[in-house]
Amino acid sequence: MDKVIVTPLKQIFHPKGDVYHGMKRSDPGYAGFGEAYFSTIHKGEIKGWKKHTRMTLNLIVVSGEIEFVVYDEAQKEFFSVKLSKNNYQRLTVKPGAWVAFRGTGEHNMLLNIADLEHDPQEAVNIPLEEIDYAW
Amino acid sequence: MDKVIVTPLKQIFHPKGDVYHGMKRSDPGYAGFGEAYFSTIHKGEIKGWKKHTRMTLNLIVVSGEIEFVVYDEAQKEFFSVKLSKNNYQRLTVKPGAWVAFRGTGEHNMLLNIADLEHDPQEAVNIPLEEIDYAW
Repeated sequence: MDKVIVTPLKQIFHPKGDVYHGMKRSDPGYAGFGEAYFSTIHKGEIKGWKKHTRMTLNLIVVSGEIEFVVYDEAQKEFFSVKLSKNNYQRLTVKPGAWVAFRGTGEHNMLLNIADLEHDPQEAVNIPLEEIDYAW
Repeated sequence: MDKVIVTPLKQIFHPKGDVYHGMKRSDPGYAGFGEAYFSTIHKGEIKGWKKHTRMTLNLIVVSGEIEFVVYDEAQKEFFSVKLSKNNYQRLTVKPGAWVAFRGTGEHNMLLNIADLEHDPQEAVNIPLEEIDYAW
């Protein structure tokens, strides 16, 4: 799917506490910096669907495990991936795709490095039932 | 101390999982985006001292609790603060200050939103004993 980029991230061992890469400005998917925020999702809960019309998302799972589903309405195409420290990758989602995510671990938290500051005007929310997906 | 800015951050309740602010490009302390990475610190361990000669740090405690100590060598002045979800603030550290931090909770992790990509040439490391502080 051309609406997403999945990029493996380094985990660097340190005896006092490890270091985990997030994003560099020279990385694939970087679209500028507007805002970084954290979102948590309780186990079994799903947030979505949301479509950003202008924002590029860069999603990194900080703790727990989160299943992301991206839907490209024009292509009628779904993409899904489960991210965690055990599958430590960054998910870039370009504007115009529908996104939903479900907590599948414990203490599930993501970081979104977005190229725009939060602006409710540029996002569209619809109920989960509006897009048929076998959760 | 003029080398640091401490900025309260919003925590937004959501029944499916809360949202935590990190940084907006319009926020105090924002100095540009170079890299975002996570660093963990085991309970009782201290990482430091490190002085960045060009990098501005923006430190947010994502989980656990971390005690930060900043030392301004020119002013012979110390600053310290313990950050966690219970004291949810961002610590901005300007270039030229010595920084060390200790894990004081469980699963201690910080996010650094730095204005430069990692470059070992711009940072100086010295052993903890080199700066006299009553840890």
